[in-house]
Order: sequence, then structure tokens, then C-alpha cells
Amino acid sequence: VSSPAAPFGARLARAAEERQTVLCLGLDPRPELLPAEVWGGVRRGPAGTARAVERFCSGVLEAAAEQAVAVKPQLAFFEALGHPGLAALERLTAEARQRGLLVVLDGKRGDVPTTSAAYADAYLRSHGAPPLGDALTVSPYLGADSLEPFVDAGRDEGGGVFVLVRTTNAASDDLQELKLARGGRVWEHVAALVDRLGAPSANGSLSSVGAVVGANQPQVLARARELMPHAPFLLPGVGAQGGAVDGLGPAFAPGPGGGLVSVSRSVLYPEPDPARPLPWRDAVRAAAEVLRTRAWELAVSGA
Amino acid sequence: VSSPAAPFGARLARAAEERQTVLCLGLDPRPELLPAEVWGGVRRGPAGTARAVERFCSGVLEAAAEQAVAVKPQLAFFEALGHPGLAALERLTAEARQRGLLVVLDGKRGDVPTTSAAYADAYLRSHGAPPLGDALTVSPYLGADSLEPFVDAGRDEGGGVFVLVRTTNAASDDLQELKLARGGRVWEHVAALVDRLGAPSANGSLSSVGAVVGANQPQVLARARELMPHAPFLLPGVGAQGGAVDGLGPAFAPGPGGGLVSVSRSVLYPEPDPARPLPWRDAVRAAAEVLRTRAWELAVSGA
Repeated sequence: VSSPAAPFGARLARAAEERQTVLCLGLDPRPELLPAEVWGGVRRGPAGTARAVERFCSGVLEAAAEQAVAVKPQLAFFEALGHPGLAALERLTAEARQRGLLVVLDGKRGDVPTTSAAYADAYLRSHGAPPLGDALTVSPYLGADSLEPFVDAGRDEGGGVFVLVRTTNAASDDLQELKLARGGRVWEHVAALVDRLGAPSANGSLSSVGAVVGANQPQVLARARELMPHAPFLLPGVGAQGGAVDGLGPAFAPGPGGGLVSVSRSVLYPEPDPARPLPWRDAVRAAAEVLRTRAWELAVSGA
Repeated sequence: VSSPAAPFGARLARAAEERQTVLCLGLDPRPELLPAEVWGGVRRGPAGTARAVERFCSGVLEAAAEQAVAVKPQLAFFEALGHPGLAALERLTAEARQRGLLVVLDGKRGDVPTTSAAYADAYLRSHGAPPLGDALTVSPYLGADSLEPFVDAGRDEGGGVFVLVRTTNAASDDLQELKLARGGRVWEHVAALVDRLGAPSANGSLSSVGAVVGANQPQVLARARELMPHAPFLLPGVGAQGGAVDGLGPAFAPGPGGGLVSVSRSVLYPEPDPARPLPWRDAVRAAAEVLRTRAWELAVSGA
């Protein structure tokens, strides 16, 4: 590292302002949903599928990068293609960066400290080349020392961490909503941990330790913002119709960079409009544009 | 899948009996600890390091496979080498299987259901070739529906799942030991979930849904066995001296396959004995042999 990088929180806040968007483009490439075009000349099998996936994601970046401040590759879909999938991911993250996007790797990693350090090496540290990601999602079940190696790598490299706090899936209550004997819920306890881990980097503005908070429960979002006043929120769960966007206000209390509105399926595979059929890249761009506009209006008015 | 595979619990129980061992060989290849020999002719950088790591792990398998029933590659150390690391992992898992070992992939994955399904595809489902792993470690923070896709893939393929329940790291108390308003601790609640998820596959014997339970706290182990009578336990935290092995009795209540004694550093990088210096492969084999013998005595007497 030649010179200390700007902290992730500051980079995110600046990029959102400059690009006038808080959209985070989720790359969840599902082979069964890819347009026919990207399969041209490739053979089925992991290497061929990885090639088609790379073409598709590259097309999505070309179509929609201007609408977004960040891109969020879901590692599972690349790992499912074996090492050719990971090679495709490596090229795509470089391409996203060239287009000025922050790269949030969605891996939900977390392990004992020495192993978390190896994951941080893999995803957040530079090795001659820049780090694969500007940020990584991590899982808190092992406690603070399992998260610190990610926070440390982020501090060294200008990278960030998004800790799972309150997720959108149906069974997320199983653990996250359990009531504690001392008061509060499990997720609120995790939120306090996130706030503590991020405090040194917050410095009165956006911290570099963020939280994944489902966008589908407005009352949760308000409470999360109370508990983590400086954390950037990664907000999954916004649908194609953008209805849920309206409930996201509290996320933007610390400024537009306080909320990354994460959209995947609704932008990657938009419902075709029979009255106005579009080539797939144009449909992706149009879907991203609608969501970008709604989210940005809210981000600015909430700030 | 041509014919339904035997359930993972049954395969594990049989393999332990046949091989007379409950040792699980953790592959945590740390570049800075590899013997000089494996670096011969390779260049530094991810591809060269991946080559050295592959030679090392292959040498470990050659030296110690007979002492073990399973091998547990820690995915973080392979991911840290980028796609060449993953390619090395793919070849090593095939080699381990040829040596008759079960492959437990240590990835601590867990995400919303559709994404967990993609991880299950990556690691537990066959695609022409056999699945990369016979089992995968998973993290429970997102709740039951985040774990079910792994359980489902395991049922289809004869594979297993080890859910993080109680870990060995210093800060594991942060979440896992929180007291719940309704009684019990967070980890006990997760243990009950593991028992429920594994019930259909247990069928009076060892289930295919296991638990990661730190081997460093005997009182926790006894309670964990009460809560999960049929789950195989993956037991990290046993040191080179084997002292902790003596506390593992409760793990083996359902039979020798009830406990996989996971050792990594103490076998991969044994302290050299100045009185009897050994070539590295011989040192690995000797360290594995000591632990195998102690653990097997306990597994049989506890059964």
C-alpha cells in the first residue's frame, strides 16, 4: 500500500454524491434465466456456463453501470461454476471498477480469527493488483473477533464490511428476533456490535463498518438507524415495482451514502412489457433507471 | 443421480468403523508455514503459491490419509489464492476421495434460501462429476430456511451438513452464550434447530445434519449431546498434545461416528523434535498417528 486509502465510508459517501445514485446492482447470474444471446457458441458445462455468465454480467455492467454507485456480485453463483466461475468473477470486478463502481462482494463470510484473516486476504487485501472487493458481507455468529480481521483489512485498504444484522428471508426470525434475558433482540445486540466496531472509522461521518438490513420492514430500519447512527446500510429486498423504496427513509439519515439500495432479480431479469418489448440490455437499463430515480429522490429528501 | 445414495450419517458411521479412526484432517494450507521442498521451481504469486499448496496438501494426504476418516479443507485458504486456488482444491478433493476419505468442506456458508441453494449446488450436488464435498459447514444466523437447501442437497446426494453451534474462538460468547428471555442460550436454541432439521435422516441412528461444537469445553459437549442425540459432531480445537481429546467422551454416545476429531495445525505443522528430526511427511504421519490412536480409544470406549 503506497499511501493510506480514504476510508470506505468516505469513499461511499463521495461516490454517491458524484454519481447521484444509491443503487447497488446485485449480480446474481442464474444460468436458467440468462438471455439466449449470451449462450452463442459456448458449450454447456462449468467452463461454458462461466463464459455465458461473464458475457451476461458484462452486458449488465455496460447497460446499467451509470445508474449505480456499486455492484454486488453474489459469490455463490460464481462458486457454483467452480474455478472458471471464480476466474470470471475476477475479470468482472476489474471491469466494474473501470466503470467507476464500488465492488461489494456478497459472501457472508465469517470464521475463527485466523481463518477470517485468510478470507480478508482473499477479498479485501491487495496483492500487487487492487483488492478483489471494496467491501464484503460478513456473518456475525462467531462474535467480534471473527469480524475484526475484515475490519482491519478494510482500514488498511480503504475497504468496508457489511455485517448481517436483519435479513429478509422468511425464517430470519428464528435467531434474529429472539428476545434476550437482558432486554432487546439478538439482531439489536448485533447492531450494537456493528456500531462499536465501526466507531473508530466513523469520525462524525459515515463509518466503514456497515450493516445488512432488510428493506422490507420499515419499523426495523428506523430502530436499526437508532442503534447504528453512522453505519452504511446495505438494503436488499426492494422489488421491481419500487414500492418498498418509500419505506427506506431512515437509512439516509447520515446522508445519501447511508443506504445502498440493492436490487438484483428485478433489474437483471425484468418482466417484459408486451406493449414495448426491448432488447435485454435496454430492458436492464430501463429497470435500473426507474429504481435509481426513486431511490435517489428519497436519499436526498431524507438527508 | 442414478440410485439413491446412502445417507451421510450412515456413510460416516460405516467409514469410521471400517477405517478404525475418527480423525478429520484439516487442510489449512498457510503459505508461510509450508516446507521449503514444495516451493521448488514455482514462482511466487497466486498461481505459484497454489501449486505449492497443492503439492503440500497432496503430500499430507499421502502421509496421513490412512490415519483419517475425513479431510476438511478450509476454503478460505484456497480462496485466498484466487481461481488457481479453487482449481487446486478441485483436484485435491478428488485425490482425497480416491484415498477413501470423506470430504468435509469448511466454508461456513449460509444465505437467503435461493442463494444457499446455489452454494449447495457448488459444494454438495453432482454435475456429471461427484459433488465437490461429502459435507459442508454452514452458519445459522439466517435461520432454518437458509439451511434447508443444504439439507435437501445432502439428502439427494448422500451428503451432510455441519451447522455452527458452539465455536472455539475467544469471542464466541458474544452471541452464542447470550441468555434468552424464554430460557436457554442462543447456541442451545441453534442446537434444537439442528436436531429438528436432522430428525428425518436420523432414523434411530446417526443423522446427516451435524453440528460444529468446540472440543475445548467438555461441559458444553455434554449439553450439546443432550440437545442433539443423533447429530454427528465436528470437533475442532484439539491441540497437538491431545490433552483435550480426553474430554470428548459425550460426542461418541451415538457410536464412534458421532465425533469427528478435527485437527489442523498440530498435524500439518508439527513441532520438530530436536532429538529425532523427521522429514516433513514423516512428521505429519507421526503426529496424525498419535492423535488417531488416542481419539479412537476414546471413541470406542465411549460408544
